[in-house]
Amino acid sequence: MTVGMGVIGAGWIGKEHIQRLTHTVTGARITAVTDIDAARAEEAAAPVGARVLHDGAAVVSADEVDAVLVTSWGPTHAEHVLNAIAAGKPVFCEKPLATTAEDCLKIIEAEIAYGRRLVQVGFMRRYDAGYRQMKQVIDSGRIGEPLIVHCAHRNPTVPESYTSAMAALDTAVHEVDVLRWLLDDEIVSTQVLTPRATSKRSAHLKDPQIMLFETANGVRIDLEVFVNCQYGYDIQCETVGEEGLVRLPDPDAVAVRTAGQHSTAVLTDWVGRFKDAFDTEFREWIAGLAAGDEPTGPSAWDGYAATAITAATVEALESGRVVATDLKPRPAFYGGAA
Amino acid sequence: MTVGMGVIGAGWIGKEHIQRLTHTVTGARITAVTDIDAARAEEAAAPVGARVLHDGAAVVSADEVDAVLVTSWGPTHAEHVLNAIAAGKPVFCEKPLATTAEDCLKIIEAEIAYGRRLVQVGFMRRYDAGYRQMKQVIDSGRIGEPLIVHCAHRNPTVPESYTSAMAALDTAVHEVDVLRWLLDDEIVSTQVLTPRATSKRSAHLKDPQIMLFETANGVRIDLEVFVNCQYGYDIQCETVGEEGLVRLPDPDAVAVRTAGQHSTAVLTDWVGRFKDAFDTEFREWIAGLAAGDEPTGPSAWDGYAATAITAATVEALESGRVVATDLKPRPAFYGGAA
Amino acid sequence: MTVGMGVIGAGWIGKEHIQRLTHTVTGARITAVTDIDAARAEEAAAPVGARVLHDGAAVVSADEVDAVLVTSWGPTHAEHVLNAIAAGKPVFCEKPLATTAEDCLKIIEAEIAYGRRLVQVGFMRRYDAGYRQMKQVIDSGRIGEPLIVHCAHRNPTVPESYTSAMAALDTAVHEVDVLRWLLDDEIVSTQVLTPRATSKRSAHLKDPQIMLFETANGVRIDLEVFVNCQYGYDIQCETVGEEGLVRLPDPDAVAVRTAGQHSTAVLTDWVGRFKDAFDTEFREWIAGLAAGDEPTGPSAWDGYAATAITAATVEALESGRVVATDLKPRPAFYGGAA
Amino acid sequence: MTVGMGVIGAGWIGKEHIQRLTHTVTGARITAVTDIDAARAEEAAAPVGARVLHDGAAVVSADEVDAVLVTSWGPTHAEHVLNAIAAGKPVFCEKPLATTAEDCLKIIEAEIAYGRRLVQVGFMRRYDAGYRQMKQVIDSGRIGEPLIVHCAHRNPTVPESYTSAMAALDTAVHEVDVLRWLLDDEIVSTQVLTPRATSKRSAHLKDPQIMLFETANGVRIDLEVFVNCQYGYDIQCETVGEEGLVRLPDPDAVAVRTAGQHSTAVLTDWVGRFKDAFDTEFREWIAGLAAGDEPTGPSAWDGYAATAITAATVEALESGRVVATDLKPRPAFYGGAA
Repeated sequence: MTVGMGVIGAGWIGKEHIQRLTHTVTGARITAVTDIDAARAEEAAAPVGARVLHDGAAVVSADEVDAVLVTSWGPTHAEHVLNAIAAGKPVFCEKPLATTAEDCLKIIEAEIAYGRRLVQVGFMRRYDAGYRQMKQVIDSGRIGEPLIVHCAHRNPTVPESYTSAMAALDTAVHEVDVLRWLLDDEIVSTQVLTPRATSKRSAHLKDPQIMLFETANGVRIDLEVFVNCQYGYDIQCETVGEEGLVRLPDPDAVAVRTAGQHSTAVLTDWVGRFKDAFDTEFREWIAGLAAGDEPTGPSAWDGYAATAITAATVEALESGRVVATDLKPRPAFYGGAA
Repeated sequence: MTVGMGVIGAGWIGKEHIQRLTHTVTGARITAVTDIDAARAEEAAAPVGARVLHDGAAVVSADEVDAVLVTSWGPTHAEHVLNAIAAGKPVFCEKPLATTAEDCLKIIEAEIAYGRRLVQVGFMRRYDAGYRQMKQVIDSGRIGEPLIVHCAHRNPTVPESYTSAMAALDTAVHEVDVLRWLLDDEIVSTQVLTPRATSKRSAHLKDPQIMLFETANGVRIDLEVFVNCQYGYDIQCETVGEEGLVRLPDPDAVAVRTAGQHSTAVLTDWVGRFKDAFDTEFREWIAGLAAGDEPTGPSAWDGYAATAITAATVEALESGRVVATDLKPRPAFYGGAA
Repeated sequence: MTVGMGVIGAGWIGKEHIQRLTHTVTGARITAVTDIDAARAEEAAAPVGARVLHDGAAVVSADEVDAVLVTSWGPTHAEHVLNAIAAGKPVFCEKPLATTAEDCLKIIEAEIAYGRRLVQVGFMRRYDAGYRQMKQVIDSGRIGEPLIVHCAHRNPTVPESYTSAMAALDTAVHEVDVLRWLLDDEIVSTQVLTPRATSKRSAHLKDPQIMLFETANGVRIDLEVFVNCQYGYDIQCETVGEEGLVRLPDPDAVAVRTAGQHSTAVLTDWVGRFKDAFDTEFREWIAGLAAGDEPTGPSAWDGYAATAITAATVEALESGRVVATDLKPRPAFYGGAA
Repeated sequence: MTVGMGVIGAGWIGKEHIQRLTHTVTGARITAVTDIDAARAEEAAAPVGARVLHDGAAVVSADEVDAVLVTSWGPTHAEHVLNAIAAGKPVFCEKPLATTAEDCLKIIEAEIAYGRRLVQVGFMRRYDAGYRQMKQVIDSGRIGEPLIVHCAHRNPTVPESYTSAMAALDTAVHEVDVLRWLLDDEIVSTQVLTPRATSKRSAHLKDPQIMLFETANGVRIDLEVFVNCQYGYDIQCETVGEEGLVRLPDPDAVAVRTAGQHSTAVLTDWVGRFKDAFDTEFREWIAGLAAGDEPTGPSAWDGYAATAITAATVEALESGRVVATDLKPRPAFYGGAA
């Protein structure tokens, strides 16, 4: 019952998932790997006994590949996902689903035409224990209707290559997905404020940024994105409702008292913060595959929304204006009214 | 060396301060009281052995009055403060200093003409232990230059008489003052977002509101004002700097574990939250009076800034636009460049 | 209505209380001071306009002395307290009430003979907000019947003059009193364990010590006394009941995140920890005096119990055995059955 | 490279581990199962494609069994472990290693004779993230030499069949092992205090109990064992050293503010508390097997010490005396001096 998994893209995250599916999560076996760099593919494939194939299309069509994992460069995602749909094979695509809203819509069209969900997008926060508890609290009605969400996404530093647009496209995209899911609501407008920039950044970078989202139901979200905060990797989220609030916990850590201070460690990278979420994400996806179920995680529609909303956020940053996200109506196939 | 104190206005807050100066804070004695309601003045004055006088001017000029406490209706503040300055007597004025920026400027002009600080405005948060610790941390450079401040000001409920404008004028005004002081910076623009309103409010009220301030140094402040949050009285403040952050503590309370929950009580009113700050505010003011020093608390200039900034915030709420606060240059008398 | 207060003993704590009654707590005035060192008495008396008298008896009998504050050397307490009772004047005696159980019993006998409570002993923890909340929780039944109490009493360092016996007599005595009051129960036996001693102590000192108390109701208390813990002044108390537990809060302090750590300051001395409790203790005592009520704080009986229990604890430390406290039956005058 | 695992005992914990090794932890495959109840063995074996064998000896000797997992009734453990050693096969034995010190010593003798470590005992707390962080802090010297450890082990309820001796044998045994490891020290004496018993227990049960351990280095440990605490499953541990302390975190959980309370959930069973530790325990054990390394987890010596110390604790409970643990000298084979 082991799922044969074909991996397209053996870069950092691809290798990470190959390790995960081999040593941490049961139920799958890596059977084929490709990468634009053949040596890199070989290096990833050999230790797990997988074949190296010459391109993504070969991986998708290989007999020993039951499901496809797309971890290549973002601009190539759409092609591989469309291939997988054409082959009728389940496909897990790391974010983004595609780098343009247009390509996301093509995938949606193809999936609807196929008539069954094949695509899952890699937004792992939905599998984080804290966010899941938060969703339970919200859904239980314990805090009443949500009105406001306060968030912060802080990284200690980023490399020179990180651009101002990436604050939305690569960083805030996680909050965009998880908040849509938490609130069961859609983001309809976006705005970006730029505080005085930190001196500890690349000269070209606007950091920090404050993103302001409004949802269809009128919930207001403020999200601080600060990718050179120095002190640690820190994810904060607080949802305020009509009768109370719910707040994400800090990761637990021993408390130490010495020299007049009570201290606990703050994490310094996202691996420590979301490793369990990644494991759970794949564990549930593979269990679903093994059971023959459609995937229940972030859908192609969610991938489209994330791409469209973060693109609008980049436009908001660059224009200084409030930008409407102008999402298409959600098709009935994805639980929408249209 | 006891300071004879004349009280103008014997309503709720006036009575509260009369009690404070009689039973909690040493160094002052209430010698005269007035109120537009003579019976109310009598009721406040009798137990502390003070004389009832027929109006504010009489209180200011009375021999047994060394210093004046203005706790009357806001629109009358300016007149009493100007009288005190004219009489060369120290005056503590509950916020607002005056209800219009013009009146505040008249007070400033009079005080400058007098040549010595006589006026202190009743913004008690500067005396709160948590905010003072936060200021020490910021001033120490431990978190680097401040870039962003996240705040929340939540009350369980407000009466029907509370209006949307009061969210700025009566509620956010405390944050406006304490943030200017914390950051040693000026607020130059203001904007208000209105999330979906809570169902647990008066029909005429916009609640919650999110106020967005920008300072001269480019710090961005977001302040949630939510005056019908139901669950408690809750003041949050987190300052994010280039190298770290500092966050206000929650008031301490015993922790209880029962029935699968670890719980601590949340306060339900501001008395419990800021009682100590009020006591310290008066203790320091009176100690300064006794020592013959000029007051070191919020000045007439701070009173002007608070009135102007909150008025701009009401305009921002009503117009939906970003509104410049357009403060006058700060006179050298108040530590400014002009 | 101001209470004239005579102070016997102008050492550190005497001066502290003189300041408190002059500048912090209203309702009293220091009218007379004595000390075995006349210069020290003068230094304490002059700034507050009090007379210096030649001995404690003179203070007790002075007309301008309505109530007596005993802050002299412990072995002299009994004499002054007995004098005050003989004079029918209320007396506040810093701990210990007397250094021997026998002397405490003489005071009790005298007070009973007088027929009205005059004596209050200075155990300030009963006035600490945290312990008061804990007592409310226990008395409410929320955690069920108490079964166990875990405590720690840690000081950063002590001087060379601090002896092993003082761990009970001067340090644990505060827990002994507050636990009897919290639990409304009596301590019937005591035992002391001596862990490996810290290297950061005087050579003659047993530090830390673990004291084990048993109450009449069978509650077990473990108390870590560690007076050279280096890191701070730290008071912990957790009461475990049949259905839950209640734990003292840590004093609130701003949280700071920098360099991979989330930190809050730990206090370094007891002044910061119990200053408010001292203020409240005197505020309530003086309010009671002004109202002509008997004192409601720790009684002569409580002073006797604390002296007897800590003496038994020293015996337990020195003998290595479990020692019964063998308290006399509590007289009906103090709420007892006998 | 998959390890063939034979399971002896298909009760609750056996089934749990079969699930774990099949669905959560990679690298092993259940190949054989036995149980005194053949139907139960069949039920456990069938879904994972394992053979059912008629007894433990058959499991140990089966060709497809590379390593043995002993999860049978405690009194049978020694026999199965000795069989495995005789067969030269690695064996993971759930606690206790054996129910008598004598049997543990026989296992030690056999393992030393074999000349290589084969045995690992199932004390999972050494794999808990919090305890591991605590050990790092202690080993780093950050808190100085350990002097005292305060612990609590609380279960909401236990069934009628739980006896007073089980508080040591089944419950405290986890602390006994993890504290020996944390401190790298041996427990030399044990004592048990019995507070007033909770009314919420079986009539025959002494609950709670306070166990007092002393180590060879003079560290004092107090451990509250309270197995009917009602409110939750709660594990506390605080190590106090010469310069500071380190405390186990509470499991993280979202915080909720409603109705005047700030609350976080307390776990209600040990599965939630130690599931990750169990997973890590097996992940590391299997990785070691796959690499051909000797096991690094709790050894037969640790199993012996735990059995001897908890037996002494039962004697201490029953006699009311301090009982020496009288452990044999630790053989050089297990890192000892002898």
